[in-house]
Amino acid sequence: MPTAVLPTTLPTTSKSSYAVTTASATFSTKFRHLTFSSSSTPSLRLRSRSRSLLVRAVAIEKEVPEEQRPDSFLRESDGASSTISSSSPSVRARFEKMIRDAQDDVCAALEVVDGAGKFKEDVWSRPGGGGGISRVLQNGAVFEKAGVNVSVVYGVMPPEAYRAAKGASVGNDGDVKPGPVPFFAAGISSVLHPKNPFAPTLHFNYRYFETDAPKDTPGAPRRWWFGGGTDLTPAYIFEEDVKHFHSVQKQACDKFDPTFYPRFKKWCDDYFVIKHRNERRGLGGIFFDDLNDYDQEMLLGFSTECAKSVIPAYIPIVEKRKDIPFTEQQKDWQQLRRGRYVEFNLVYDRGTTFGLKTGGRIESILVSLPLTARWEYNHQLKEGTEEWKLLDACINPKEWI
Amino acid sequence: MPTAVLPTTLPTTSKSSYAVTTASATFSTKFRHLTFSSSSTPSLRLRSRSRSLLVRAVAIEKEVPEEQRPDSFLRESDGASSTISSSSPSVRARFEKMIRDAQDDVCAALEVVDGAGKFKEDVWSRPGGGGGISRVLQNGAVFEKAGVNVSVVYGVMPPEAYRAAKGASVGNDGDVKPGPVPFFAAGISSVLHPKNPFAPTLHFNYRYFETDAPKDTPGAPRRWWFGGGTDLTPAYIFEEDVKHFHSVQKQACDKFDPTFYPRFKKWCDDYFVIKHRNERRGLGGIFFDDLNDYDQEMLLGFSTECAKSVIPAYIPIVEKRKDIPFTEQQKDWQQLRRGRYVEFNLVYDRGTTFGLKTGGRIESILVSLPLTARWEYNHQLKEGTEEWKLLDACINPKEWI
Repeated sequence: MPTAVLPTTLPTTSKSSYAVTTASATFSTKFRHLTFSSSSTPSLRLRSRSRSLLVRAVAIEKEVPEEQRPDSFLRESDGASSTISSSSPSVRARFEKMIRDAQDDVCAALEVVDGAGKFKEDVWSRPGGGGGISRVLQNGAVFEKAGVNVSVVYGVMPPEAYRAAKGASVGNDGDVKPGPVPFFAAGISSVLHPKNPFAPTLHFNYRYFETDAPKDTPGAPRRWWFGGGTDLTPAYIFEEDVKHFHSVQKQACDKFDPTFYPRFKKWCDDYFVIKHRNERRGLGGIFFDDLNDYDQEMLLGFSTECAKSVIPAYIPIVEKRKDIPFTEQQKDWQQLRRGRYVEFNLVYDRGTTFGLKTGGRIESILVSLPLTARWEYNHQLKEGTEEWKLLDACINPKEWI
Repeated sequence: MPTAVLPTTLPTTSKSSYAVTTASATFSTKFRHLTFSSSSTPSLRLRSRSRSLLVRAVAIEKEVPEEQRPDSFLRESDGASSTISSSSPSVRARFEKMIRDAQDDVCAALEVVDGAGKFKEDVWSRPGGGGGISRVLQNGAVFEKAGVNVSVVYGVMPPEAYRAAKGASVGNDGDVKPGPVPFFAAGISSVLHPKNPFAPTLHFNYRYFETDAPKDTPGAPRRWWFGGGTDLTPAYIFEEDVKHFHSVQKQACDKFDPTFYPRFKKWCDDYFVIKHRNERRGLGGIFFDDLNDYDQEMLLGFSTECAKSVIPAYIPIVEKRKDIPFTEQQKDWQQLRRGRYVEFNLVYDRGTTFGLKTGGRIESILVSLPLTARWEYNHQLKEGTEEWKLLDACINPKEWI
């Protein structure tokens, strides 16, 4: 049994959102069945007998606000004391460098587009290692709310989870009681909600997850996974915008593997479904999770390329749409779609729901919610209208390119 | 194994929200561990190995819109063909009569207070029996959104659920494979969101649940439960309003049992908790679930009294507060609290979350959501302000009377 189970703050659809750390007290007596749920691949699957049991067993290690950004949130043993650079040897260090660069670049580009709003930064750490930087631009000229967060988490997963992940019987041979398996998770996560109903919402998230070889679990190897995605949620369809967005995703994918775009495009369509409405929250993009069946360096390169593609995929669309005049009805429709966004995030998004139920930095988790949203009873659309076309595309995902 | 499991539409915190009907196709092959989750009493406890497994196994029987309200949604065998009256013999029939009267009375009173808005009614039924009436007043003069729904559900629960409920080994003796257990559930559920930030939101819900004696489960008796509650969610505290509201709840309780008010007041404080924020959504009221350890007629009378208390508890408060001038900042604060209401309903409310994940009439389930809501990143309150006082009372529940 782990001595303590603590949540992460990654406000994402991410396995790394299930990351837990160990620096705190013991409250694991009820803890039994945590394994990690992930997306549609079965490699890490939640097998909790009862989620409520799990949630009761998990508690919060309070994050500590920091005055200044540290050079790295890594533990010294991971290379934190040396300057992080893209030539650092560990994937952990290079991934942290990548997401922090991406955060800087995306925030700078968004401030330029917005023209008025500035990002407010909150830096925090956890006593047991790791930490994060939350940046939020609220009520700008162009953006209603834009959040771009990075976080690094050191944690421990229970041996059951590790066995489930490995799919074998490590330490499951009766006498040997394996201990908890240390892991590392890092990610960038962002949701951008513009004010203008013709400018789409964007979400992106890239993450890296790694287990250590636990000392008391002989033969358990170090394992790693990548996950992430970028997807577009407009209230109105400009076909050229959606084509442009998907084209940039495809270009990033095609540099690495021609099967990536079609596979991750479908994965995205399958994941962002508001099941109780039988509709997607938006017009998709790419999504992948638990990716480890490729060369690790290749996947690090691919994640980097995806993160770098956010600006060229999104900024030109916002530039083009941010000042289009709109009616109150069009604003209301955007607000209704924002309500759907809230429904997806609070009901289905695994990172959000797990993060909420287990603790974590709430303000970072819920920065994904729009500033304002709307729910009308039994809202009906007239077939053929622009609003209907959007909804139709959310119900019946299309091949845009 | 049940042949089919279908959801109800009760948008409530209710066991009856977990009601399922049987009129449809077979898709139960994966269905294994459904029992009914209820509130803090253990009499009906969810023991699903995996909620996702359950959810995948449950499908929607589409409700059928009806042109006219039937006199009763009961099956003929339950007395539907006779005129429902308070002298009808079955508790089912009298409970349906009670909730439909309450719906009429509350809607009429709300229309008077509103002065402009009128309720729009949707009547629907299910082929296998049961149905409901949803009434919504949207964008009135006083109410942003007011929903008052009744529904009647016939369903079948798996034998595991029945065993869990009974807490014994009915049909659990090896050879005997008990069949699914038929049940009946009926309830009224309502959420009222006024426009004025000084007029509080009200929620109430009363429900009755009954199992039949299944023919192939020898010795399984008919069982029944009552549940419900009424609670107040203001954005600003007027102490006289909260005292008045709680006093009316206490009066209703005291007519039946002096232990009811303190017990159900605490139950309410314990249930409506937004756990990830360590705060309640509002200032409470009463809440009870799985109540069957009293005389059945007494509990029917108690539920009726509670439903009748809604108007005297709430309408005078709205009358007093609906026209108070307010600032944009006060409206924003109300909208932020509405966001919290959305968080509770979508993340924690058992009826809503289960209803969403298993199907049911989405528009009835989500009518509880406000017309508009707001999320600000890292919103901070100054100690001692009126907003801070409300939040403090949500964090530290008080004895109001």
